[in-house]
Amino acid sequence: MEIAIPLYDRFTALDAVGPYEVLWRLPDATVRWVGTQARPYATDRGLKLVAEATLDDVPAPDVIVVPGGTGTLAALEDERLVEWIRAADRTSTWTTSVCTGALLLGAAGLLDGLRATTHWAYKDRLAGYGAEATSQRVVEQGKVITSAGVSSGIDMALLLAARIAGDDVAQAIQLRIEYDPEPPFDTGSVAKAPERIVAMAQSPTPTAAGAAG
Amino acid sequence: MEIAIPLYDRFTALDAVGPYEVLWRLPDATVRWVGTQARPYATDRGLKLVAEATLDDVPAPDVIVVPGGTGTLAALEDERLVEWIRAADRTSTWTTSVCTGALLLGAAGLLDGLRATTHWAYKDRLAGYGAEATSQRVVEQGKVITSAGVSSGIDMALLLAARIAGDDVAQAIQLRIEYDPEPPFDTGSVAKAPERIVAMAQSPTPTAAGAAG
Repeated sequence: MEIAIPLYDRFTALDAVGPYEVLWRLPDATVRWVGTQARPYATDRGLKLVAEATLDDVPAPDVIVVPGGTGTLAALEDERLVEWIRAADRTSTWTTSVCTGALLLGAAGLLDGLRATTHWAYKDRLAGYGAEATSQRVVEQGKVITSAGVSSGIDMALLLAARIAGDDVAQAIQLRIEYDPEPPFDTGSVAKAPERIVAMAQSPTPTAAGAAG
Repeated sequence: MEIAIPLYDRFTALDAVGPYEVLWRLPDATVRWVGTQARPYATDRGLKLVAEATLDDVPAPDVIVVPGGTGTLAALEDERLVEWIRAADRTSTWTTSVCTGALLLGAAGLLDGLRATTHWAYKDRLAGYGAEATSQRVVEQGKVITSAGVSSGIDMALLLAARIAGDDVAQAIQLRIEYDPEPPFDTGSVAKAPERIVAMAQSPTPTAAGAAG
């Protein structure tokens, strides 16, 4: 089973690595890191991950996981990337996204008429692609699974692991990565966070309200 | 504020990227990816992350985050890495680990007499370094914070973010990465998982019980 994760400049590291950490552990799985060029791609803030193959090298993966990031809006203009997603989806078993990666699925025409989710700050943009935006963390619509912001890719990938290899394998992977979350606060969604925290979180690098420029 | 994440061959991607995704968002934070050599380092299964500086280039970071991985046991024999951790801790404000990264803190002599945690499958090894092993997800002992397996680094980093920049900033980061976990199963710790799942999860790549070789 070939799982492809396409990279582009200023993608968000955890969007891609959360699902990777789950999916490489599946039986007979090979994860392919691809890009318009085979080269390192910078994440939002410096860290680089290596795409070892080009998009053309991996035309028909079984599973596609499209990450989001501060670079997604620029990536929407990259016709090679969008066309690869559109073409790969024709033969994929599963087509998935994390965070604003959903906008790339949308630009490829894959969300028309579907319910879908993305990062809370970008929810309104999904409607432009004919999708019905929800605030759910993970939305499964046939073979298309979208998930909410950044960290939600872990939850999405565990669901996907269960669909692919059964609940027991998915549960064992969850235990292996010791995913028994204990967030120190309960402010991880817009519905739960106080208004001043939502205001601070409009920026990728929040500063204390009093210190905001 | 300089945050150093040391890489070594076959570290676990999420151990490093979970904390990165939280900590780069702190005000005035610079994350430095370091290694005994400045080069790409392979994670457990192929993906490579780039260390852009050597350990010598970053001798006195404010914060150290040591990841674990299937390569940790080999890394324990790397005297340059262990000595760097030992020396960097002398001037650090915070010294932290994720997963089996705690064994590297232990080898550097930093856990003697402290309570500490690590990946559940490696808990017994902590005692060899004079630490009192616990099953807690995150253990704070003065400036040393250890966390449990793989995904726990996100929880650890949010606690650390609160210590460094205050609760509001940490909460806004939690919202920005939309960390409102909804694991599809409740099997993320040994205490919660059925015995057959614990048996399967002894391997980094679990297979269904019936299919085990």
